[in-house]
Amino acid sequence: MNRKIQIVVIGDSIENETNNRLAYETGKFIASQGWVVINGGNSGVMAASSKGASENGGIAISILNGANIDGGNSYATIKIPTGIGWARNSINVLAGDVIVAIGGKSGTLSELSFAWCYGKPIIAFANSEGWSAKLAGTSIDDRHGDTIISVETIDQLQKALFETVDKIISDNS
Amino acid sequence: MNRKIQIVVIGDSIENETNNRLAYETGKFIASQGWVVINGGNSGVMAASSKGASENGGIAISILNGANIDGGNSYATIKIPTGIGWARNSINVLAGDVIVAIGGKSGTLSELSFAWCYGKPIIAFANSEGWSAKLAGTSIDDRHGDTIISVETIDQLQKALFETVDKIISDNS
Amino acid sequence: MNRKIQIVVIGDSIENETNNRLAYETGKFIASQGWVVINGGNSGVMAASSKGASENGGIAISILNGANIDGGNSYATIKIPTGIGWARNSINVLAGDVIVAIGGKSGTLSELSFAWCYGKPIIAFANSEGWSAKLAGTSIDDRHGDTIISVETIDQLQKALFETVDKIISDNS
Amino acid sequence: MNRKIQIVVIGDSIENETNNRLAYETGKFIASQGWVVINGGNSGVMAASSKGASENGGIAISILNGANIDGGNSYATIKIPTGIGWARNSINVLAGDVIVAIGGKSGTLSELSFAWCYGKPIIAFANSEGWSAKLAGTSIDDRHGDTIISVETIDQLQKALFETVDKIISDNS
Repeated sequence: MNRKIQIVVIGDSIENETNNRLAYETGKFIASQGWVVINGGNSGVMAASSKGASENGGIAISILNGANIDGGNSYATIKIPTGIGWARNSINVLAGDVIVAIGGKSGTLSELSFAWCYGKPIIAFANSEGWSAKLAGTSIDDRHGDTIISVETIDQLQKALFETVDKIISDNS
Repeated sequence: MNRKIQIVVIGDSIENETNNRLAYETGKFIASQGWVVINGGNSGVMAASSKGASENGGIAISILNGANIDGGNSYATIKIPTGIGWARNSINVLAGDVIVAIGGKSGTLSELSFAWCYGKPIIAFANSEGWSAKLAGTSIDDRHGDTIISVETIDQLQKALFETVDKIISDNS
Repeated sequence: MNRKIQIVVIGDSIENETNNRLAYETGKFIASQGWVVINGGNSGVMAASSKGASENGGIAISILNGANIDGGNSYATIKIPTGIGWARNSINVLAGDVIVAIGGKSGTLSELSFAWCYGKPIIAFANSEGWSAKLAGTSIDDRHGDTIISVETIDQLQKALFETVDKIISDNS
Repeated sequence: MNRKIQIVVIGDSIENETNNRLAYETGKFIASQGWVVINGGNSGVMAASSKGASENGGIAISILNGANIDGGNSYATIKIPTGIGWARNSINVLAGDVIVAIGGKSGTLSELSFAWCYGKPIIAFANSEGWSAKLAGTSIDDRHGDTIISVETIDQLQKALFETVDKIISDNS
């Protein structure tokens, strides 16, 4: 596989200290592995995870709902302005080998729903606020036999990411 | 307002007898008012609501995920093939003055999430299965002060539709 | 085929008297056949073709680039707000059994290009201004063996529409 | 500006030796500047420009029409599967600070049209085949006063890219 491993971080744009700290550490860890952070490019969890990646030498990609190539937060190293509004939530999760969910309101819930439809591995922080916490450890429907992986610490996230990424790499080789 | 009132019916593509009966009666009622039924154009709740409308002289529009103008169920009187995959779930709910939710899995959950983001009035059958029942009577987040209106019978649906449509018409005049 | 025949009218939003007159007559003729007019819902050719249809008892659908269900011109009888910006140009032409092109700038050129990609029959007014006139009677590429049908009068348009629609109906039966 | 300069390369998926050589050299040059190559991720010009970038240490991003994260050519280092079909042509050009056009059929023509709508600087190889050559040095419409910059060699491309990128950087600072 020539392309890099791509980890999508979803969560709301609200500035919540706990969520932002988790997001920053998530982005930093992803960068440390040479993987790419992808998110919606707005504030809150999105900005924090991109900051964690780009401040530590990683690539952070904003997939923006707007059409302006300079829109969204300033921590991204690459910006993809889709111009398709909130329909871009579908692209966000398609672009991930794995989805990491931190907090989240209705926008994040649409992304969790799409990620589930697409059969993407989802890891959610049970101690963040909002829909990530509500759905961590559960199944959204019976379409497939997966469960949203529940984590509470960066250590647990790292372990879960290594397991899911190893599986993806071995499936591709 | 020159355009017709547009009611979007969301729900899953599974053939469930209870859900399909509710969907058929919903489509029939919408047609009886001269309103338009809009849905995703697949089977299950989507096909049943279009059947209810088109068998009773109404207009039923399929907003299809595929690119084929003849795709989806055969009860629609007009087909809009978007070719944008499941991102079309965002368009589905944007196209409604009101959203009626019957049953539903992860795809329907993405539509409920988007409808909530967009501030659309949502009416959900509490006695259908899946996410419509789980979320009926609740708020998806605190973004705005609305609640998903919970109904259990076609009579209750009609009352809720008249109230929300009256409000839309008076807001537009 | 239960659904109605759907004719998409493309052209620019500029108010050009010649183009608007052709668009109005096109919409009126489509309505007279019980077919549906679909366009992008803005001003100019789009507004005029919807006016021609809706003032003569027909259905006129706006597929809007914006997210507002009450956006665009007021002649449409149904509005589909996509919220996906100019990417909706792809949906516009997918939604047609036949494409009628009147005038047009770069936006119309993107629609002509997509219509050609999708293998849709295209009828262009050679006496309108802009890209419809430039490309009438030509082939956009060698992907398939079609030619953009060139017409100059409403009589010629009617003849060309009857021929293409007859072929579509016989292919579907 | 924290993000990298992003250059979109458009052109058809046909394997044409002249076009592919120009595309490879274009990708190689973009990588040498630390800029990012973005394209539609298919074969032909798209594969060749990504190959030129990734074989020379650069970042090459495929914005795919499909939903499969491993779709498209194998020269990309990052893949964004949009799942929105050819509507992704709009995203392709929105994602560029500058658009470089090499060859091209109707798909490329839709991208040239969108790039023009969005007011993006466009540089086209007059000696490639197809729509890039036909439109090099011309204006698509009178919406703005630009002209598609015509080049015939990699040296001319480099000069044109330096000029347009310098202008973008100075406008952003």
